[in-house]
Amino acid sequence: SALYRQAGAPIEDRISDLLRRMTLEEKVRQLDMYSGATSIMSRHTDDTHAAADALFLPEKAEALWGDLGVGSVHDLNPAPEQANAIQRWVIAHNRLGIPALFIEEGLHGFDTGTVFPAPIGLAATWNPQIAQQTGAAIAAEARATGVDMILAPVLDLARDPRWGRVEEDFGEDPYLTGRMGLAYVRGAQGGSLSTDHTVVAEPKHFVAHGSPEGGTNTSPVHIGERELRMVMLRSFEPAITEGHAMGVMAAYHEIDGIPMTADPFLLKTVLRNEWAFQGFVLSDLGAIKRLYTVHHVAGSLADAACMAIRSGVDMQFYDLDHAPFQKALIDCVHNGTLSQTDLDRAVRSVLRVKFSLGLFDHPFVDTNLNVKEHRAPAHLAVSLHSALESMTLLKNDNHLLPLAKTTQRIAVIGPNGNIARYGDYEKEANGEHISILQGIQNLLPHATVTFDEGTSIPQAVAKAKDADVVVMALGEKLGISGEGFDRSSLDLPGNQQELLEAVTAAGRPVVLVLQNGRPLTIRWAKEHVPAILEAWYPGEFGGKAIAETLFGDNNPAGRLTITFPQTIGQLPDYYNSDPSRMYGYTDSNGRPLFPFGFGLSYTTFRYDHLIVQPPAPGSGADIQATVEVTNTGDRPGDEVAQLYMREDVGSVETPRRSLEGFSRIHLNPQETQTVTFHIPQKQLAVWNAEGKWAVEPGSYTLWAGGSSQATLTAQLHLRP
Amino acid sequence: SALYRQAGAPIEDRISDLLRRMTLEEKVRQLDMYSGATSIMSRHTDDTHAAADALFLPEKAEALWGDLGVGSVHDLNPAPEQANAIQRWVIAHNRLGIPALFIEEGLHGFDTGTVFPAPIGLAATWNPQIAQQTGAAIAAEARATGVDMILAPVLDLARDPRWGRVEEDFGEDPYLTGRMGLAYVRGAQGGSLSTDHTVVAEPKHFVAHGSPEGGTNTSPVHIGERELRMVMLRSFEPAITEGHAMGVMAAYHEIDGIPMTADPFLLKTVLRNEWAFQGFVLSDLGAIKRLYTVHHVAGSLADAACMAIRSGVDMQFYDLDHAPFQKALIDCVHNGTLSQTDLDRAVRSVLRVKFSLGLFDHPFVDTNLNVKEHRAPAHLAVSLHSALESMTLLKNDNHLLPLAKTTQRIAVIGPNGNIARYGDYEKEANGEHISILQGIQNLLPHATVTFDEGTSIPQAVAKAKDADVVVMALGEKLGISGEGFDRSSLDLPGNQQELLEAVTAAGRPVVLVLQNGRPLTIRWAKEHVPAILEAWYPGEFGGKAIAETLFGDNNPAGRLTITFPQTIGQLPDYYNSDPSRMYGYTDSNGRPLFPFGFGLSYTTFRYDHLIVQPPAPGSGADIQATVEVTNTGDRPGDEVAQLYMREDVGSVETPRRSLEGFSRIHLNPQETQTVTFHIPQKQLAVWNAEGKWAVEPGSYTLWAGGSSQATLTAQLHLRP
Repeated sequence: SALYRQAGAPIEDRISDLLRRMTLEEKVRQLDMYSGATSIMSRHTDDTHAAADALFLPEKAEALWGDLGVGSVHDLNPAPEQANAIQRWVIAHNRLGIPALFIEEGLHGFDTGTVFPAPIGLAATWNPQIAQQTGAAIAAEARATGVDMILAPVLDLARDPRWGRVEEDFGEDPYLTGRMGLAYVRGAQGGSLSTDHTVVAEPKHFVAHGSPEGGTNTSPVHIGERELRMVMLRSFEPAITEGHAMGVMAAYHEIDGIPMTADPFLLKTVLRNEWAFQGFVLSDLGAIKRLYTVHHVAGSLADAACMAIRSGVDMQFYDLDHAPFQKALIDCVHNGTLSQTDLDRAVRSVLRVKFSLGLFDHPFVDTNLNVKEHRAPAHLAVSLHSALESMTLLKNDNHLLPLAKTTQRIAVIGPNGNIARYGDYEKEANGEHISILQGIQNLLPHATVTFDEGTSIPQAVAKAKDADVVVMALGEKLGISGEGFDRSSLDLPGNQQELLEAVTAAGRPVVLVLQNGRPLTIRWAKEHVPAILEAWYPGEFGGKAIAETLFGDNNPAGRLTITFPQTIGQLPDYYNSDPSRMYGYTDSNGRPLFPFGFGLSYTTFRYDHLIVQPPAPGSGADIQATVEVTNTGDRPGDEVAQLYMREDVGSVETPRRSLEGFSRIHLNPQETQTVTFHIPQKQLAVWNAEGKWAVEPGSYTLWAGGSSQATLTAQLHLRP
Repeated sequence: SALYRQAGAPIEDRISDLLRRMTLEEKVRQLDMYSGATSIMSRHTDDTHAAADALFLPEKAEALWGDLGVGSVHDLNPAPEQANAIQRWVIAHNRLGIPALFIEEGLHGFDTGTVFPAPIGLAATWNPQIAQQTGAAIAAEARATGVDMILAPVLDLARDPRWGRVEEDFGEDPYLTGRMGLAYVRGAQGGSLSTDHTVVAEPKHFVAHGSPEGGTNTSPVHIGERELRMVMLRSFEPAITEGHAMGVMAAYHEIDGIPMTADPFLLKTVLRNEWAFQGFVLSDLGAIKRLYTVHHVAGSLADAACMAIRSGVDMQFYDLDHAPFQKALIDCVHNGTLSQTDLDRAVRSVLRVKFSLGLFDHPFVDTNLNVKEHRAPAHLAVSLHSALESMTLLKNDNHLLPLAKTTQRIAVIGPNGNIARYGDYEKEANGEHISILQGIQNLLPHATVTFDEGTSIPQAVAKAKDADVVVMALGEKLGISGEGFDRSSLDLPGNQQELLEAVTAAGRPVVLVLQNGRPLTIRWAKEHVPAILEAWYPGEFGGKAIAETLFGDNNPAGRLTITFPQTIGQLPDYYNSDPSRMYGYTDSNGRPLFPFGFGLSYTTFRYDHLIVQPPAPGSGADIQATVEVTNTGDRPGDEVAQLYMREDVGSVETPRRSLEGFSRIHLNPQETQTVTFHIPQKQLAVWNAEGKWAVEPGSYTLWAGGSSQATLTAQLHLRP
């Protein structure tokens, strides 16, 4: 048979062989994505879901696809039988038998499967192993339905809390985001994509989407090349170079006048030449179209399409209608405005993903698999574990927490009390959706747990007065946080501040539990409420995790991955600013309300003996640092040991400190552990004044401790 | 005599001749600035002023300067006799007779001379002629005392209203700032610097200081090269290339990791190679020192000094102590880390300024001049004229303004009522300091004008109730606005909002008069107060100008040069954002409260017939646009006709619209004038995707009208 059909042949040879055989029309078809549920199925429940009993309609596929095949199918969320039926038809109905690629969302859970904490919560665990398990669980649930690729993880740095998509990020730090992203990618893609439980991961939104001007989604990003390379690209690089992620999504925005889908520097030079990215670049939904409609760098939709492929995008995402898109590329190849080389690069990239997934060799999914993988107990356990590890204690005056399990009367008050907040990209109907109220009731079946939504403040106050302790369940809902839900205020929304003040004034002990997608300016709460637990959007077992934390079954050790500002007027506020960033205002000291890396425990920790071993000059070996961490309290607990560094004098200005290592460890009372950090020298490289990467010799300061304000220091003298 | 002493010889030849004769020690001395008042005079009134009767002490000069001469003398504010005495000594006491250069502040007035409106107010006139007259008046008052150089104008773009130095800027627009800056420079430098009434102007703070991260002074600026070139540098370029400003101040901050005093790209490539800058670059006070202490790009103060000179700075400003500074440069020349070429470039630049000023040929000032120039009537008239033209009417419901001169009882209430607010870089004791209260009293000697500072709100309300009309004199004082006075809130400070609400509730007609250095978030006032006049800091005749405006002797025609946001949570907010900047929030539409270019009049204007003449292809001629403006009301008045443009489709994303022309005209009732705008084609050049300047052929949209929201459009098709 043809070389490209031989499973044992090297993939690059198979691609080349196949590419040689393809017509221009067949090629451009591979660069197009088709919406599935609404176009080729007999019934759909919404625009993104085929009905469970829907039939694949070959006559519709015939009209849509003819005999040219299909690049990818999206917004289908198929049953495995449906995916197989479509795949069978696609393979049979294109000359060369090229299979379809099924793509779906999977940010913190796949479709109706296990609901995991939102990424901002997952990141709060500072536990890449959980990120890997999350990625693997989502992949297994997806692939078992025939889905090959997931539009995740989000590796933008959340530097503007006004942005509604902060909840989708792993926070503000490039190193932490890089490690969590790598772990998710490794979990999702596994050791091989050619399995029945792994999928292509697709880091997004390439690149720097999390610093939009004004905090508004898709707005321009104002940075120069050094910040781009040393901060923004750094969060993506591990997922590509170490994790070999086979997808990347090009974002909506522009940087310094160049939109992401029209930027060959980023999509070709950095991604492919410098990082050797092997997968394909997908436009964010409509991002190519916006070259014409919003950015005004293309004179027509057709120009936009060709510009994007020329710049390094490989597949459109509902940008142009199918016929005009494909015609545009064909015309551009004919008139020379799109080179055959660029077109082939795009086709090759898509085909490589399909070959890597084994779709040419085993295109169908075992239809028995889904029932085993969908919400598998192991996945549910990961979700709960993640939620428990994400709980971030911000304040706990006089050891109000943990509450005694013997507490008799507990009032849960607030709009987040009787509902599980999942955050965007999950329906709140999915999963177990355990609310705080339910979580407490389950944990303390004999207690009297009352609930008030807080709509009527006097009524809420009355309930509070009847309780021994009040749990204020506040924060944000979808529509206030999430994609497209940017805010110009970071205060508690609606009547929540007023409600909190009134209930606090009632005189009962109050614990504020926040479920929200971004830092909130809770300065009043920090001053007046004795205990504050940041739960983010903790997934389907969130209420259970919160209850177990409040009542001491879980000792919280989540840490902030994003700075909480005192007021919105001090933005941007992130810990790894340059030393020349000044903080004082006439009306505020401008310091964070809660800093990056911060979080309390029911026990306490001490750091001693930070020792750093410089690598032998010329050895290229890792820098090794050790620190002793001791649990100085009387409860076992986890601590997230954090290592920060800065070059004391550099050729360019560098952040006042940067996270370069972290380790979440468990310590029994009075136990001491020595934590070892290995820092590859190249991790310290700066994009120097000459525009080159360099690890600069000289002295470096290290800090180790439990937050970005760690004070235990050591000095490293690095010789080249 | 030596060539360099021959007044008739070409300056470059004189410099070369002199340079050849100088020792290394003499050279580096030229790059140093000395504080005058405290070091060489018998008495000083403060650190920046010699006492009027102070004597120059040669023995102190001898100890300080020996026989090596002196680069510049600053912080002296000499009497002319003092300047002459020092100059005489300096020339006599260095081998080659090189004169000293006297440098002082002159932002909106020189020393105790005429106090002009702060730059943000001057800009509100949209009248470059007044800027030129202001520059000329300041120069004449300065030079008459022996001062040769003024540390102004400020050409940073005020894109962050939190920044305390917004008041020193001409606003947020690069074109307007460029025109005002050029006019100021032309006024200050005149046709020749070798006169008794012109001084070197020194545009600052090079470059982009007005976009500091977090709005805090001297913080990093995050932009890429395109924004740097197309926006930030554009405000400086006319002052250098057309105005031939002979000084530039390198700013404190870094852009993308490179501090301004260590940036050869900006200080050499752009400033000298591309713009042919002929003057010298001065460090902002301590900016070189900060390379070591703050930016950490230099390992010692000595390194910082050499790095700065190597990068294109030519004179330090109290960075290092004198001996270590000069030794550092000498050592660096000796060890090769500072080239002779760079050192000579710096010395040559300083000497060129001294030759250009004629200091070698007529080093002394006519001591009879000062009494004629100091607060000359013509200068005072410019100040008043500027203040009148700067008055910016933001709201005027039901023609509340102008108030009838027959008004009997007027209450002036608020902390800005009984004091002339000048803004930073002026002492409030200078000049006539006419307050609003005094201005009204002078204008209406028979009315009862009461005043209350507003400290006690009930007392203020009582006074309001006794009045026929209330003038609320609110805003900011020094310490809330000004250098180092950045804010994290833009609300009315202190109790002013509460005061305003209480007084408004008293039921009398209220006019809000603002004197402030930055846009304030006066959303409540816009909704509830019938009339709002923005007066900025209007100089010594401010109270007179305000009174004449309130009572109709002056028809206001000032226009905003900076956007007023609704809330601080929508920053940055400037009109010329890119089209992909999105504005909606879940809690706000994010639109400006008052847009750039906006201002009302006591009459009304209509725009008709915007017609654009494309230049003949290949001619390189200007684009010419005309629009008819008609005064449709019943009062004479000025209108600021504004022309905005954008390229419809460009190779890179460009602002949604950019100011490309403006003209302040006077129209009698029912009069129509045709305004003609000449737009040089190169004004439309973009820094394209290839990193080159290009005027791109294609279609452009033009808008003409009375603000940045102008709706009258025309289309231009530009052929190359």
